[in-house]
Amino acid sequence: MRNIRLTIEYDGTSYHGWQIQPNSPTIQGILQEKIGVITGERISLIASGRTDAGVHALGQVANFRTGSRVPPEAIQRGTNSLLPDDITIRQGEEVSDDFHARFSAKSKVYEYRILNSPVPSPMMRNYSWHVSKRLDLRKMRKPGQTLLGTHDFSSFRSAQSDNLNPIRTLMALEIRKRRGNIILIQMRADAFLKQMARNIVGTLVDVGRGKIDPEDVGEILDARDRTMAGMAAPPNGLFLVEVEY
Amino acid sequence: MRNIRLTIEYDGTSYHGWQIQPNSPTIQGILQEKIGVITGERISLIASGRTDAGVHALGQVANFRTGSRVPPEAIQRGTNSLLPDDITIRQGEEVSDDFHARFSAKSKVYEYRILNSPVPSPMMRNYSWHVSKRLDLRKMRKPGQTLLGTHDFSSFRSAQSDNLNPIRTLMALEIRKRRGNIILIQMRADAFLKQMARNIVGTLVDVGRGKIDPEDVGEILDARDRTMAGMAAPPNGLFLVEVEY
Repeated sequence: MRNIRLTIEYDGTSYHGWQIQPNSPTIQGILQEKIGVITGERISLIASGRTDAGVHALGQVANFRTGSRVPPEAIQRGTNSLLPDDITIRQGEEVSDDFHARFSAKSKVYEYRILNSPVPSPMMRNYSWHVSKRLDLRKMRKPGQTLLGTHDFSSFRSAQSDNLNPIRTLMALEIRKRRGNIILIQMRADAFLKQMARNIVGTLVDVGRGKIDPEDVGEILDARDRTMAGMAAPPNGLFLVEVEY
Repeated sequence: MRNIRLTIEYDGTSYHGWQIQPNSPTIQGILQEKIGVITGERISLIASGRTDAGVHALGQVANFRTGSRVPPEAIQRGTNSLLPDDITIRQGEEVSDDFHARFSAKSKVYEYRILNSPVPSPMMRNYSWHVSKRLDLRKMRKPGQTLLGTHDFSSFRSAQSDNLNPIRTLMALEIRKRRGNIILIQMRADAFLKQMARNIVGTLVDVGRGKIDPEDVGEILDARDRTMAGMAAPPNGLFLVEVEY
């Protein structure tokens, strides 16, 4: 059996997230179906992690095992020709047998895009969170030092999270402003708890609009209590940019 | 009667273009309907010009006359609250009675976006033309000097064009490359013939991929014959950026 690694870009707007579900379109579901046509066998994809409904990926990574002799580039191109145009395999390559898209991942980069302007933008509606109240970037950057490092991130994970270990290491948290009133929040962590990226962004935005004091973010983190932090930012502003191995 | 000027952004993906049609969703149709709800009367929009099905606008300008006393900002906000999220009125203002969105326009800026990469991008699929063959930008920039200025642009207008005067002045034609294999072609003209922007881009792309010699573009222009130029670039890469008055 060969082990094939795929790098995948998708627009999550029309999907119920990565993970396969009966009766709902999912990224994993449609990929497995189309790859199966090319390899001529049922395959099972292992992703670096799930993405929620509406979340996008520029560089999701997944792997699968196959007995097929179809070269990885032909799997990539062949599958792309069958996929809808909101999902594309950017790269296909054969990797060593021990590569596991989830367990081999060393870190992940997420980017969150906010349109901070009085008027929403049709062009960005599926790819950003529109926040009309002007955000104070200086305030939003303050909690960075508190959040960076290894912590129990229970306050920032989904109430429905089933992961037992809430300890994660946030390696980078960068907030930039781009032309056109766009605020980009980039986060790198060894791994992310369920909705952790969106909950951190939701809290930072509450700081930026004055609902949460920057100094209180440490307390929220220490509380290990989901009800303390801000609401989750909507999924459509979130991009899984890269998985590092 | 007051004269109201609107600046409008729209994602043209789901519409049959600007101009109102029976039984098809159009930008003009939906705007007139929703503005009518706010002003309490039937209104008729005059745009700077039509955009084809699938073409986008960052700054389309339109005006209408109304007996209503609703302030322009309230028309803007009220209509936005009724519009689908792929159309937004960015600005509403009262203007002098002689302002006419089409006849008062001095020039227009269009931008065309090309994704020049072997693999298509889900995120850009509705907002760019995916050209997989590598384009030679140096070659593409050569016909600029030929096309700039005042010419009979019959070779670059739609065969279905009903405009009698094919003379237009192309004031600027700039080709830039942006990170991520994106090529931006920006054009400014006093006005554009039907499909002129897309036909110029189609021809420049044919130059970039070696199908048309850069030196032949002058001949194509001189021929005043639509069958000489390259095919029209697809509508989804085209943005009406700005109308200048």
